[in-house]
Amino acid sequence: MLLKTPYLLFLGDAADPLAAKVAQGIKDWRPDQCIGQFRQENCNADLGIEDLTIAQACERGAKTLVVGVANRGGVISESWLAVFEEALNAGMDIASGLHNLLVDEPRLASLAEKTGRALIDVRVPQHEYPIANGVKRTGKRCLAVGTDCSVGKMYTALALEKALHKQGRAASFRATGQTGILITGDGVPLDAVVADFMAGSVEWLTPDNDAEHWDLIEGQGSLFHASYSGVTLALIHGGAPDALILCHEPTREHMRGLPGYTLPSLEQLRDMALSLAHVVNPDCKVVGISVNTASMSEAEAKKYLSDLEARMGLPAVDPFRDSAERLANALS
Amino acid sequence: MLLKTPYLLFLGDAADPLAAKVAQGIKDWRPDQCIGQFRQENCNADLGIEDLTIAQACERGAKTLVVGVANRGGVISESWLAVFEEALNAGMDIASGLHNLLVDEPRLASLAEKTGRALIDVRVPQHEYPIANGVKRTGKRCLAVGTDCSVGKMYTALALEKALHKQGRAASFRATGQTGILITGDGVPLDAVVADFMAGSVEWLTPDNDAEHWDLIEGQGSLFHASYSGVTLALIHGGAPDALILCHEPTREHMRGLPGYTLPSLEQLRDMALSLAHVVNPDCKVVGISVNTASMSEAEAKKYLSDLEARMGLPAVDPFRDSAERLANALS
Repeated sequence: MLLKTPYLLFLGDAADPLAAKVAQGIKDWRPDQCIGQFRQENCNADLGIEDLTIAQACERGAKTLVVGVANRGGVISESWLAVFEEALNAGMDIASGLHNLLVDEPRLASLAEKTGRALIDVRVPQHEYPIANGVKRTGKRCLAVGTDCSVGKMYTALALEKALHKQGRAASFRATGQTGILITGDGVPLDAVVADFMAGSVEWLTPDNDAEHWDLIEGQGSLFHASYSGVTLALIHGGAPDALILCHEPTREHMRGLPGYTLPSLEQLRDMALSLAHVVNPDCKVVGISVNTASMSEAEAKKYLSDLEARMGLPAVDPFRDSAERLANALS
Repeated sequence: MLLKTPYLLFLGDAADPLAAKVAQGIKDWRPDQCIGQFRQENCNADLGIEDLTIAQACERGAKTLVVGVANRGGVISESWLAVFEEALNAGMDIASGLHNLLVDEPRLASLAEKTGRALIDVRVPQHEYPIANGVKRTGKRCLAVGTDCSVGKMYTALALEKALHKQGRAASFRATGQTGILITGDGVPLDAVVADFMAGSVEWLTPDNDAEHWDLIEGQGSLFHASYSGVTLALIHGGAPDALILCHEPTREHMRGLPGYTLPSLEQLRDMALSLAHVVNPDCKVVGISVNTASMSEAEAKKYLSDLEARMGLPAVDPFRDSAERLANALS
């Protein structure tokens, strides 16, 4: 594992709960890994877990201080640095997904070296990945693909992991982005990997496994998103999924960050993703649809999902409103 | 431009003509840029251009010593270093596409700094590329896409440039690999670009241009190659081509480096590439086929190309045996 567990979650001076959404994600999906939270005086977020000092957290076995909050103004503030230094001195590693890298802070870098502790910037690839070899691996893999970026692919994969575990089945969420890596403690920051090694990094992330084990691979980008489609295709060809879940946000008016582009239909996504997946895995199937219905009423969402099921002939759920159980059932 | 012209081509102690194929490519495609060649005593390659000393080349205006030869044993030898130092001292930059970087040689690095000359490793991205914005640009773009890697995509794009220039039309080869960059003096080493910026680097490489100007974009990888398909898709979505040329090598038994994978048919390539290109450019068309018939007899090649034309309804040529004129005619 890249990160040592358990964690103390650093919320700092979070302006509001949204600023601490990374910490919230870790607490929601890996509650057992979270010893407590560290909040500064003017913190406006609260995960509802115990507030601990650095010393208390260490005493209870915390191994890593995880920066679970977005920083303000693009710098790591003096008050944060003081806490981070305290953590390093107390024997904790520090992990962060911030744009400003921990290793670029001279005070932290020298103290980490002195104390023998690690500064782990999960945005930066921490391994040398191979070039993909396209060789079939044992075990099963499911990949979430989206009509657009930010439509719930990570949430879907995490919810699927939870649902499979609830059914007593073997499954591992495989993180490909910063937040996912902080949640699981390991993964590949795919958008920062050098082009030639993208697919290889995904093969590395999803190695041979037991025949009935499911890797639930976090999707990135979209085949239909001009900026990031290459990353998505590397996920499909490196992941060689047995199952695809289509992810969608029905009220999105244009592709994220691309005002001139409308979203593809779910049929277009299904056909394109499946054709490309068949290059590496002829048995790949689209098994279900995950819809982010956050901006719909309960009744609207229910009708939308039911219409979609009829239209596509696939289970369609919002794993946040309901659960991913029916998607898990579709993984056979 | 990344590289200053004209060049002195360094052939060193090339074991055979194949070892100097980069130099050969530069001489073939940019003869006007080549002042001469520099060969060491035990060199077994000869471009048929004038042998010059460093001093003579400088006198005639050479600005860059281009390493046009593969090195032996994965190190830059003492005898090469001595020549490179002489070139730097004489006022030339040095450009290389070797795996061993020039900048990693302490003697060269310090001398380059002292003399104010540049060491340009074209494998390493030399710019910070933007994230792709998907906005339509003026001018026209043609992209070579292949059923596999190494099927003649670079050659095709260079031959198309030559054919268009012969017709008096405005056109620019746009290099996306090391050899192409050394030939043209500029470009993007796409396989070394970080995932998030791949498509953006291709947009950067093919900016707004005159309405009738053609960018001839060097292809990379293949949509059907598990290791590199993401790079290919970034080229399609970043390049937003108006025209696609399908490239193929008919005797290839499996995908390069992937023994378990057969090549797709040209029909599969056509349909897949076109569907993906239409995401960013609904007017994109497949306009022709470029076939590497090197391992066929003249008669076999002729029959293959003629059958292929009938089958696909597209001009099919081997630009090496013949010319790319008919492909150029198809760019309208």
